[in-house]
Amino acid sequence: MAESSTDLDFLAGVRVVDFTQFEAGPSCTEALAWLGAEVVKIENPRTGDPGRRLRPGQPDDDPYYFHMFNANKKSITVNLKSPLGLEIVKDLLRKADICVENMAPGTIERLGLGYDEVKALNPRIIFCQIKGFGTGSPYEKNLAFDMIAQATGGTISVTGERGRQPVKPGISLGDTGTGMTMAITILGALRKRDKTGEGCRLQVAMQDAMLHYMRTNFSTQAKFGKAVERDGTRSGGGTNGPSGLYPCAPGGLNDYVWIMTSRGNPEHWSRLCKVMGREDLIDDPRFNTPTLRVKNDAELDPIIREWTQTRTKHEAMALVGGAGIPAGAVLDTMELQNDPSFVERGIMQTMEHPTHGGFKMPAWPVRVNGKPPKVKASPILGQHTGDVLHGWLGLSAAEVESLKGEGVL
Amino acid sequence: MAESSTDLDFLAGVRVVDFTQFEAGPSCTEALAWLGAEVVKIENPRTGDPGRRLRPGQPDDDPYYFHMFNANKKSITVNLKSPLGLEIVKDLLRKADICVENMAPGTIERLGLGYDEVKALNPRIIFCQIKGFGTGSPYEKNLAFDMIAQATGGTISVTGERGRQPVKPGISLGDTGTGMTMAITILGALRKRDKTGEGCRLQVAMQDAMLHYMRTNFSTQAKFGKAVERDGTRSGGGTNGPSGLYPCAPGGLNDYVWIMTSRGNPEHWSRLCKVMGREDLIDDPRFNTPTLRVKNDAELDPIIREWTQTRTKHEAMALVGGAGIPAGAVLDTMELQNDPSFVERGIMQTMEHPTHGGFKMPAWPVRVNGKPPKVKASPILGQHTGDVLHGWLGLSAAEVESLKGEGVL
Repeated sequence: MAESSTDLDFLAGVRVVDFTQFEAGPSCTEALAWLGAEVVKIENPRTGDPGRRLRPGQPDDDPYYFHMFNANKKSITVNLKSPLGLEIVKDLLRKADICVENMAPGTIERLGLGYDEVKALNPRIIFCQIKGFGTGSPYEKNLAFDMIAQATGGTISVTGERGRQPVKPGISLGDTGTGMTMAITILGALRKRDKTGEGCRLQVAMQDAMLHYMRTNFSTQAKFGKAVERDGTRSGGGTNGPSGLYPCAPGGLNDYVWIMTSRGNPEHWSRLCKVMGREDLIDDPRFNTPTLRVKNDAELDPIIREWTQTRTKHEAMALVGGAGIPAGAVLDTMELQNDPSFVERGIMQTMEHPTHGGFKMPAWPVRVNGKPPKVKASPILGQHTGDVLHGWLGLSAAEVESLKGEGVL
Repeated sequence: MAESSTDLDFLAGVRVVDFTQFEAGPSCTEALAWLGAEVVKIENPRTGDPGRRLRPGQPDDDPYYFHMFNANKKSITVNLKSPLGLEIVKDLLRKADICVENMAPGTIERLGLGYDEVKALNPRIIFCQIKGFGTGSPYEKNLAFDMIAQATGGTISVTGERGRQPVKPGISLGDTGTGMTMAITILGALRKRDKTGEGCRLQVAMQDAMLHYMRTNFSTQAKFGKAVERDGTRSGGGTNGPSGLYPCAPGGLNDYVWIMTSRGNPEHWSRLCKVMGREDLIDDPRFNTPTLRVKNDAELDPIIREWTQTRTKHEAMALVGGAGIPAGAVLDTMELQNDPSFVERGIMQTMEHPTHGGFKMPAWPVRVNGKPPKVKASPILGQHTGDVLHGWLGLSAAEVESLKGEGVL
């Protein structure tokens, strides 16, 4: 089989000093690494990024989370509380194009590495900060994790069953969703920096970034003049029907298919009737316009369910989708993990890690000339300390060893 | 009040030919527009982007969806089925840096504007395609909307209440989430193109992009060896406690607060006990380790609920968050729409539209030197036909009028 991934050099020569931890920051810098930037994690010598060890004080039996968000990066250890360690990091910042951090509010400034200090060291740098809440927000000093961003950013309020309690979207959008908006802005800023030599300060708050992913909800609110209510087994606008989740055989927790007939394409409805062997419904006066199908869904849904419940979700998707109607089986994480199509197309790749062996994970999903970028191992803590300090700052192996002995690295 | 937004010129001079429609494509090109690119929508003269008219055949009383995803862009009308119209678009492509489309599978090729044709016209172009399913997938010819991507990409399977049916995350991640991954890759590709003169082809599938946002779920699966089950009122990993949604006064649909105590920071627990006036619980043998708090959550949750139910969600967030414990009120779309903090910080801005008046909407969430980019009006259909054909191709006003008369524009 031909190689299904490629080494990308889009950002060859771009140097990133990466102070990020957990996911919101690391997902951003990892995107840069996949596109070919040299991303150097600055980690404390004792434990490193806390995303490496989700069970403090216990053995690290869970490196998967760290692999996911730190592929293709380098790691160096520096003790930022040592004056010499701080000087070394400042020297790295002088050589960097981009610096990214997502520490707790105020931490980077207390380290003496706030924007004003770093700009004075390197006016060309793009200095990037990811926080839970925005500067100027009443909550700007508060701590946040993904779920806090999703609560205060609105995504939880629109998710769940109609009339029941809300639930968190099962994905970590508060983290990775935020990281993506920062990565886009960094790459825009870099283009200007390349032309003018002028760096800048970029800031994003996880709460604010959630609004960006909720714009369809805000447009629904603008149309109806009231807060959007959740109705998670139907489509959002409430204007297309039938559109929703229908149960399939054999009735397991994820045996559902989403079928979507669009009011924009009247053929979806007639095609669906034909697939179900119910041509008689096409012109049924209860259902023969999109508005009527939404209005009379209490009568229509049982008819569709009756058909879907005699098919598996895969059969239903193949039959309905194959007839030109948007349809999708609800796939769980294990079904996705084991689907050979993702491996063949390079969307799932196996990270070969020197101590943790092979780890199959989603790669960057965009293909470049037919192939996604190749996933390389996440770094062992401090794996590249010698290489980077030599390559960027010219330190010798003996100097690095000596600094390690002094507790600086 | 000082201006809270700024005109960004990060991508000044970058020309984008934009064939996108609805959301997955437009969210991508809009990000480029906010960063200063000249994004020109190519629309059919009769109805334009179907996102302009979500109710075909009926008056357009719902322009909000279109505004959300097309701010700061230009619009020209061209009849792509007219040979002369097609030639004009080819001339535009010769002058463009980037071209993006998200039509149904096979459509752009049938128009004679597939990658090979466009590359022959302009080898420097970055040619971008967004589809529901990937080239090489068994479903590559299938149609998809947001909900189909979320069903087949796994996000629905992990969202919902424990043991109950799945629900769709209430946000259109299948669309905007996909658009963000393409925007990042485009900006990476542009940097290389600027250096080498070499364009490329970029492709992303909405199903594949969902995996990128589910990586925390895949890491949980790797740890436990089974498909991730939904449990939308608790945090994902099941290893932090207490962490989840707790009901607040007065008991409305969105009167909840998410409280998250991390096992990585043992002080979260003791601080929470103090906020609740329950110092007696700190060393309670049922709850005095993170593992015990998860194990005995059936005893612990009612204690926390008893406290939260006597506070509003805002009070609970202020008290718990203010004590240094991650906490977030569940805010609905109207509360977010009316929160003055977003306006003061430029995160919500009012689009001044010549025919639809003022429309308040989320702007790009990343601040550049303290300010997000300024939102400008979405284009009226064909508003910039004359300007762009003159500016890019040198056509005179008379020529443009004549082509309009012939049904070409």
